[in-house]
Amino acid sequence: MIRVSIVNVTSYTGIELLRLLAQHPQFQVTSVTARSAVGKRLDEIFPQLHATLRPFETQTVDPALVITEEPEQTDLAFVCLPHAAAAEAVAKLLARGIKVVDLSADFRLHDVHTYEEWYKHTHPAPALLETAVYGLCERYRAEIKQTSLVANPGCNATTAILGLLPVFAAGLVKPDVIIDVKAGNSGAGRSPSLGTHYAEVNENVSAYGLSGHRHLPEVVQELELGARAGGHPLDAAPRITFLPHFMPMTRGILVTSYADLKQDASGRIPSDEDLRVLYTEYYANEPFVHVVEQSPQTKWTYGSNHCFIHPFVDNRTKRLIVISCLDNLMKGAAGQAVQNANILYGLPETAGLAALGLHP
Amino acid sequence: MIRVSIVNVTSYTGIELLRLLAQHPQFQVTSVTARSAVGKRLDEIFPQLHATLRPFETQTVDPALVITEEPEQTDLAFVCLPHAAAAEAVAKLLARGIKVVDLSADFRLHDVHTYEEWYKHTHPAPALLETAVYGLCERYRAEIKQTSLVANPGCNATTAILGLLPVFAAGLVKPDVIIDVKAGNSGAGRSPSLGTHYAEVNENVSAYGLSGHRHLPEVVQELELGARAGGHPLDAAPRITFLPHFMPMTRGILVTSYADLKQDASGRIPSDEDLRVLYTEYYANEPFVHVVEQSPQTKWTYGSNHCFIHPFVDNRTKRLIVISCLDNLMKGAAGQAVQNANILYGLPETAGLAALGLHP
Amino acid sequence: MIRVSIVNVTSYTGIELLRLLAQHPQFQVTSVTARSAVGKRLDEIFPQLHATLRPFETQTVDPALVITEEPEQTDLAFVCLPHAAAAEAVAKLLARGIKVVDLSADFRLHDVHTYEEWYKHTHPAPALLETAVYGLCERYRAEIKQTSLVANPGCNATTAILGLLPVFAAGLVKPDVIIDVKAGNSGAGRSPSLGTHYAEVNENVSAYGLSGHRHLPEVVQELELGARAGGHPLDAAPRITFLPHFMPMTRGILVTSYADLKQDASGRIPSDEDLRVLYTEYYANEPFVHVVEQSPQTKWTYGSNHCFIHPFVDNRTKRLIVISCLDNLMKGAAGQAVQNANILYGLPETAGLAALGLHP
Amino acid sequence: MIRVSIVNVTSYTGIELLRLLAQHPQFQVTSVTARSAVGKRLDEIFPQLHATLRPFETQTVDPALVITEEPEQTDLAFVCLPHAAAAEAVAKLLARGIKVVDLSADFRLHDVHTYEEWYKHTHPAPALLETAVYGLCERYRAEIKQTSLVANPGCNATTAILGLLPVFAAGLVKPDVIIDVKAGNSGAGRSPSLGTHYAEVNENVSAYGLSGHRHLPEVVQELELGARAGGHPLDAAPRITFLPHFMPMTRGILVTSYADLKQDASGRIPSDEDLRVLYTEYYANEPFVHVVEQSPQTKWTYGSNHCFIHPFVDNRTKRLIVISCLDNLMKGAAGQAVQNANILYGLPETAGLAALGLHP
Repeated sequence: MIRVSIVNVTSYTGIELLRLLAQHPQFQVTSVTARSAVGKRLDEIFPQLHATLRPFETQTVDPALVITEEPEQTDLAFVCLPHAAAAEAVAKLLARGIKVVDLSADFRLHDVHTYEEWYKHTHPAPALLETAVYGLCERYRAEIKQTSLVANPGCNATTAILGLLPVFAAGLVKPDVIIDVKAGNSGAGRSPSLGTHYAEVNENVSAYGLSGHRHLPEVVQELELGARAGGHPLDAAPRITFLPHFMPMTRGILVTSYADLKQDASGRIPSDEDLRVLYTEYYANEPFVHVVEQSPQTKWTYGSNHCFIHPFVDNRTKRLIVISCLDNLMKGAAGQAVQNANILYGLPETAGLAALGLHP
Repeated sequence: MIRVSIVNVTSYTGIELLRLLAQHPQFQVTSVTARSAVGKRLDEIFPQLHATLRPFETQTVDPALVITEEPEQTDLAFVCLPHAAAAEAVAKLLARGIKVVDLSADFRLHDVHTYEEWYKHTHPAPALLETAVYGLCERYRAEIKQTSLVANPGCNATTAILGLLPVFAAGLVKPDVIIDVKAGNSGAGRSPSLGTHYAEVNENVSAYGLSGHRHLPEVVQELELGARAGGHPLDAAPRITFLPHFMPMTRGILVTSYADLKQDASGRIPSDEDLRVLYTEYYANEPFVHVVEQSPQTKWTYGSNHCFIHPFVDNRTKRLIVISCLDNLMKGAAGQAVQNANILYGLPETAGLAALGLHP
Repeated sequence: MIRVSIVNVTSYTGIELLRLLAQHPQFQVTSVTARSAVGKRLDEIFPQLHATLRPFETQTVDPALVITEEPEQTDLAFVCLPHAAAAEAVAKLLARGIKVVDLSADFRLHDVHTYEEWYKHTHPAPALLETAVYGLCERYRAEIKQTSLVANPGCNATTAILGLLPVFAAGLVKPDVIIDVKAGNSGAGRSPSLGTHYAEVNENVSAYGLSGHRHLPEVVQELELGARAGGHPLDAAPRITFLPHFMPMTRGILVTSYADLKQDASGRIPSDEDLRVLYTEYYANEPFVHVVEQSPQTKWTYGSNHCFIHPFVDNRTKRLIVISCLDNLMKGAAGQAVQNANILYGLPETAGLAALGLHP
Repeated sequence: MIRVSIVNVTSYTGIELLRLLAQHPQFQVTSVTARSAVGKRLDEIFPQLHATLRPFETQTVDPALVITEEPEQTDLAFVCLPHAAAAEAVAKLLARGIKVVDLSADFRLHDVHTYEEWYKHTHPAPALLETAVYGLCERYRAEIKQTSLVANPGCNATTAILGLLPVFAAGLVKPDVIIDVKAGNSGAGRSPSLGTHYAEVNENVSAYGLSGHRHLPEVVQELELGARAGGHPLDAAPRITFLPHFMPMTRGILVTSYADLKQDASGRIPSDEDLRVLYTEYYANEPFVHVVEQSPQTKWTYGSNHCFIHPFVDNRTKRLIVISCLDNLMKGAAGQAVQNANILYGLPETAGLAALGLHP
């Protein structure tokens, strides 16, 4: 068994990792940290883990595990800290020879200036940016295998990028895109605030991040790289509007992306069928990305690592619309983190991740 | 007191009209119809109306009123039937000398061909299209006063149009707009279906009407007319993408509209402040439309007739974004219907509509 | 106009009072306080109040009112502070000759020892307990008219007491009662915590207050007094189990009360019809309490001051079951507070409170 | 692999079985039926099953499987039909030598008269009642192993019975119990109705089944049998009030049971600690039933087969209160059905059921 630690296990991504790893055939959780709960047993914080004490097939999460302040020596660490704090912890872990999947934003952007512009502080470990690999599994499998530091992508960013990569790679779209994000409230984390207070969120929809959301630079970076990788590099930085909206629901992100399609030499723009073929081929071997012919629903992904994508042409304006959705805590966070860890260790990419979404 | 009837009172718009009229100083409900409940007392269907029996200040809804199949003679009728059935009922009511506020789509579109293209049936009363006035109060007060048939606007359409009228009237925007609609489930009406089944809707977000939503032609018609009225007629039909999404909530619509701003002669595009001034002036005397400087929330409008609008410039792309929101059953339906009825009878426009939204 | 102040206006009961008073014919809000928002205008905190600026029929809440630390001189104050802090503020207000409706628990219990046992601190103003009147309007109208200090009842307590008073007053029930409370989350207030965090509350039901909920002594006190007032004083303290459960909803309380009915001399226990008659007579002249023959729903009360009660006999066990429901922020808090204020000033008891609940 | 069929796969229990069986090591779904969808592929109805096409570890649900009207020959059938229709289908399946786990109520009650009194029709296959075993795994493992027909318990009944069995078996409680049920809406099934219409259910709590809920006779039967099995047979039929309430949530049941504890010879009633020991021993070897020391939440069980129970003594009245909760579609239906199937085939009881609940 591979020993793993979860740093900041009391975050929602930490809890979700516990849930996933409790079913994983190869990873054993041997260390968990959380500043606010040092000295407590896991099942004092999460009584539902009592269940894992019983003689199940696998026993990879021990509910009696005691929470510590610093992670003990393990083979791999999942870091669930906020940005800045994450980078500091990651540097120490790597120095101890521990591989890291970092769920924060600290190592996602290749350009340190962009990072500092958006995150408003000096990067704590800029030297590591070169070794870090952006953990979008569908794009960087080969690189992830070779690295010791995976920067797990943002939830909104993953949903948007997966929806737009095929047309950017194929050079079919003008780089002028509107990304309208509808995101469940668990993406805001487990720290209470007025913006996550039940009576405020329930029966309420609103936009946030109007002056700019931090997942935008990730999206820009990856669409540019995707276009280049597909042989259709962009002439200039893409013009992207990215606006997230809070939904009165716990889990799920649905992104609606709008862009103008390019005409080919004969003045023809791609049809629905062209798009279907393009997307299906692009994701042909992907276990977790599914191109569908109906309007997908966040509920199809509830608790699963799957992403559903439906591209189509708006029949009056001939604009491209792509609807993509996933579970923000799974393919948008902890699920993708486990997928990355599977790749890091040469395990089947779907190990521990085969569950379907809950319906209803 | 002005006598009013509610045709199809068991619809959600019918129930909402009861709630509003129970507080109205001038309208008395003297006739209610509903095919499925003929012969029953109102309070057998809606026990919460027991409350109106008591000696309150006003007594305009009698819970003991018996539901009939056809409306009795009144001064005014609110018609809450589905399209096609509505037009037939409206024709009969007008023939009896009863004024009508029709909440269906039957008289919203001036062009009968557009109607028939979108609603897929022959218009039952095309001759009435000329007398009908589109009941967007902020635009057509003068005309509403003179008519006997008001076509109450669609809920999604009202939200989108109010958000975009000022820039269309001022000629500040390219007529190429993306309207992303987030709509509460009560807009789908009171007839059960799998799409409105609780276990399917809860914790779920999805887009619908991908091949075209029927509120689009209303929006096109009104933005064209608004542009012309403002002295900036469009050269061609506007290119509008209109995509609604179902939200896991009962009430509320939030529309996010995206469009490119035009440059003026000096190459300058409007600023946030320019937009604020423009919108504030456009709606200066409106009791129910409020331009705000923060991101508005549907919850501000819960149960009220108010609409909140926040226009701003996306600071990276210089695109115009307008967020507008309202309660789909109020300013999006029954509230606006009462506002129209107030105008029809020369009453204060806010009569019976002064309530604030519930928070939380 | 009667001048009123709202102390701690940023609480949910404070906001609800603003909503109600904005429609009130006689009360004008001239002072508002909130420690965390001193110096801000009301509409900076609650943008939905923009709406009240407009030329509506009445103008009793000015959105430009500036929040202060201490209330200015008014005729009446609604105190929305937590217990202990409330008592201190109340004492000062009364000393300034200002009448008070206190929404905290500080003056609800007549016995200071009971208060101190349940609230775990010394009562800050025990001398005022004698002048305070428990503000359950249906019971204490006469006393409320004479006092300057009304102790507004707890939300869960109001729902339970209204459901049980008629049988206690009639001496029909054994004083051994189980009160199972289902309460919306807004009752927990506006201060964020893990227990009110959206992602924790949504899709979740749990019991709380297992070692004893503070509304229990109110219920005991009022059922004892109600029994005595009805001429059927209890021999001993009633044996009451009171267990609240959090519901995944914002507003509404539904209480299910279970008790054994007494047999009369002939060994007969009351029938459904007996109960219907008893309850209907007990609440015959009440504008806000309605005895119904169906299972009532919290949704009938959403945003209204009404309470619905359905008593019936469990047909197998012959046990009494009473279902009672109301909106915790209205009849359970701010609505009842306004009702009390109406009584204090000899206004019609329904002034400003005539609204029906929202449906849906 | 053991071949299984799902009869009426388009029900919520049918869908949940698909989700579970897609991860099961030994059962392969080779036949699915649904009257309304004959001839369609599974993934036309449930696009989320696309995911199971991919090369996952196991492949036990083929999304291309075509829905038929009658089940094909398999080793085992899960019957998800409504009562009456279920019994007819079960009789035919058994005649073909197919083992059956029936999720309907048709074979739960041993007494045909009780069945016919509650279900208001003649039992279609009374002869089978003798072979049927009530599928509460914790009670009837040995019998389930020997039978070919398992009657899967009702969701509310399972929650209540598991919560009360230990005290009935130990003879510690007076057989006079109040069972207050809080149940998620998915328990009402997938057929749309006004009672399951989103806008009606959301933000609403109400009691239903006031004249008697059909899970009551199951509860009575099993508590009587449990008492007898524990050596403390009841003198008379227990007096049980059973009242379910609909919660505004999709999944989850929480049952609060209230009963008086018996005194022992020395007049002592059991303490919290006595109860903890009793319950912990009673469920000592159970993989899915967990006795906890805090107030349990339905969310701990979301999507899992686990049941959490917290018994305690109300410290003022000395009454027993037991809170028990589970996921109505899992341990309350499909999960328990798979657990029963595992027992039928001598597989590890937890096969395919090891998942933890989703949190949040």
